[in-house]
Amino acid sequence: MTPAELVTSFIEAIERKDVDAATQLLTEDVSYENVPIEPIVGPAAVAQTLQGFLGPAAEVDWQILRQTQHGELVINERLDRFKIGDGWLELPVAGFFEITDGKISRWRDYFDMATYTTQLTELTAT
Amino acid sequence: MTPAELVTSFIEAIERKDVDAATQLLTEDVSYENVPIEPIVGPAAVAQTLQGFLGPAAEVDWQILRQTQHGELVINERLDRFKIGDGWLELPVAGFFEITDGKISRWRDYFDMATYTTQLTELTAT
Repeated sequence: MTPAELVTSFIEAIERKDVDAATQLLTEDVSYENVPIEPIVGPAAVAQTLQGFLGPAAEVDWQILRQTQHGELVINERLDRFKIGDGWLELPVAGFFEITDGKISRWRDYFDMATYTTQLTELTAT
Repeated sequence: MTPAELVTSFIEAIERKDVDAATQLLTEDVSYENVPIEPIVGPAAVAQTLQGFLGPAAEVDWQILRQTQHGELVINERLDRFKIGDGWLELPVAGFFEITDGKISRWRDYFDMATYTTQLTELTAT
């Protein structure tokens, strides 16, 4: 797999809510950063965080709008969608993935946290 | 200038608070998007928005941490710093710049708005 294919596989595993499959694509020292929150380090901690995101969602649809590869760096712009209750939470995200020895070693996502929390509050209130 | 050099020049003009010089690097139909806010269209509207950001700052220091170029697309991760009162507001940003005929035609920045507003409130209160 190319670095870009690896990242796409990772996103697809997340869409299946298959956190185990997703986690197997991470290095042992992986760092996952929801900028500007402190990094989450290690596959187990990343899995726990992903479960927190994915748990409330009946369906997960992370659309890769554009993706580019630069050596071992893959960058994408995404629309991360979560079906919660009767509606869809939609979050625009810029993701930066660094690949080491065929696995994801650093993952930085940039997004507006309030865009996430406001929709989550609305959708879980109904 | 390469697309990457153009973007670097644009950032440097912003750091000098030279909005006129920055605006000259934009196409007439430029779209500037602080995701997920609606796009700002045209150099005059972009200039007005930039003045709003830059006005309160005694110094502006937008650090390009990493920058890659993919044909006419330039992507950077930045730490946008603004000196306000006695302190520095620091905002992590992911920026996507599309170049058309040697000018910036689309600019999308991804960041956490609360990280900006919280610091701005603190720094202007002192």
